[in-house]
Amino acid sequence: MKAIVNVALKQGVLDDQGKATHHALDTLGFKEIVKDVRIGKQIILELNSSDEKSAKEEVVKMCQKLLANTVIEDYDIEIVG
Amino acid sequence: MKAIVNVALKQGVLDDQGKATHHALDTLGFKEIVKDVRIGKQIILELNSSDEKSAKEEVVKMCQKLLANTVIEDYDIEIVG
Repeated sequence: MKAIVNVALKQGVLDDQGKATHHALDTLGFKEIVKDVRIGKQIILELNSSDEKSAKEEVVKMCQKLLANTVIEDYDIEIVG
Repeated sequence: MKAIVNVALKQGVLDDQGKATHHALDTLGFKEIVKDVRIGKQIILELNSSDEKSAKEEVVKMCQKLLANTVIEDYDIEIVG
């Protein structure tokens, strides 16, 4: 079983990396089309578990203990396979 | 219109950050459940475009020019909204 965890900065938190990427895209000729860029992390966990519910509970614990800084980041968890 | 670009290291490329995270999860008591960890980037682009096909073409160009290092990374693009 696989868990895909997307971690992104909360709205309102300055996204330096996104801003820099936006600026770089502007200078590469994408100024007209790009309105905003935000950059987050995608964490793909391969799990030893057959129960989707308990797997999700474990992944929530991992997010709160390590994978996300919940002061400034939001996360969402998707269990697949 | 929004584009979500997931950029991940290709299979076979050493994922340092994933390895370190895996080790940290092991020490936090998730040794039994976690088999593997891979870490990638998720880039969320807000686009000025109404045509999904042309938007996707532009995002492919962005990936090849800037967002992904296609020597060692794979990307996938999802157009939403």
